[in-house]
Amino acid sequence: MQNNISMAVIRRLPKYHRYLKELMDKEVKRISSKELSEIIGFTASQIRQDLNNFGGFGQQGYGYNVEDLYYEIGKILGLTKEYKTIIVGAGNLGQALANYTSFGGYGFKLAGIFDKNPRIIGLEINGVVVQDSLNLKSFLAENEIDIAYICTSRNGAQDVADILENANIKAIWNFAPIDLKVSDTIRVENVHLIDDLLTLSYFLSEKDKK
Amino acid sequence: MQNNISMAVIRRLPKYHRYLKELMDKEVKRISSKELSEIIGFTASQIRQDLNNFGGFGQQGYGYNVEDLYYEIGKILGLTKEYKTIIVGAGNLGQALANYTSFGGYGFKLAGIFDKNPRIIGLEINGVVVQDSLNLKSFLAENEIDIAYICTSRNGAQDVADILENANIKAIWNFAPIDLKVSDTIRVENVHLIDDLLTLSYFLSEKDKK
Repeated sequence: MQNNISMAVIRRLPKYHRYLKELMDKEVKRISSKELSEIIGFTASQIRQDLNNFGGFGQQGYGYNVEDLYYEIGKILGLTKEYKTIIVGAGNLGQALANYTSFGGYGFKLAGIFDKNPRIIGLEINGVVVQDSLNLKSFLAENEIDIAYICTSRNGAQDVADILENANIKAIWNFAPIDLKVSDTIRVENVHLIDDLLTLSYFLSEKDKK
Repeated sequence: MQNNISMAVIRRLPKYHRYLKELMDKEVKRISSKELSEIIGFTASQIRQDLNNFGGFGQQGYGYNVEDLYYEIGKILGLTKEYKTIIVGAGNLGQALANYTSFGGYGFKLAGIFDKNPRIIGLEINGVVVQDSLNLKSFLAENEIDIAYICTSRNGAQDVADILENANIKAIWNFAPIDLKVSDTIRVENVHLIDDLLTLSYFLSEKDKK
């Protein structure tokens, strides 16, 4: 039942998960697709369709049990296990990600941080000591890592990706402003911050023209 | 000619811009849609279609003049003027964004940083002194700001958005893990980092099932 789910649906799931958590925090026990629609911004029919992809949790006339739905979506998102992560590139952004303890709350456990800058190597960030990037290969040979966050500059990112691919890493979260060339067995999520900013400047300049 | 451009096209423009800059750095003078296709990963026909939206820069049998195309796309993206930006929330992520000098290279100028934490207020980050968030309203009344980056926690973000809306800010780059409620005259770009991570954990757990 969980095959052939479209990318669009998958990308909406974390949002459902986030809103359901808020409802749980407010001690809401159950919710109709119509009520959920009003807070989440998707149409009620979209919501029913999305959730039917995974077996249909709702009961007619009752709605969804918030807690059940939260845990079911968490299960679909793979949140029942722990993921070991590393950060490569411990500049400002890498350090910010290392300090994001809330990722840990979801089961993403930071196992290593790497940088090539001698002034950064040896620093302790959120309980993890920054290692020399030269150790990356041997670290990966000895530790099973699930997700690598690439926070290097544009120039260093592809070399890091090559090392990760050789070490059989299956998921990369890439913050460097390049599109990595890796085998399509590796799942890459890109956060190209500057691209977002340029979308905003586009809209601002369009507004000016009107 | 620049009206009714689809969001999908607009979202691809920063990528064209990024690749054209790389080509310029390598002193490539002109390029065919086919060659561009090979490096950028869109089909040649997609590229011709995209660029035709803006008047068509290519010449049959010659291809695109890299430098001209770079500047034209920059113009479309609104990069001919300077944008004044502020950061609200100077935790790890806010500080990382403040230190991203490369945003400045594009004409995004950091005019203010705000936080409510007394230990952070007064710090100088990338030449800008962090002010008390209580000053935000009066600062916005006195300074014309184009884009606000919200880097607060989930709880503080909507209050900040309300202040920004009242001050007539037109563009928000939101890093807080909530969906802001603002008038649709304001352009909001969201970076929900945790949503990306959950997409990766989804794929990892699907892989495990196979």
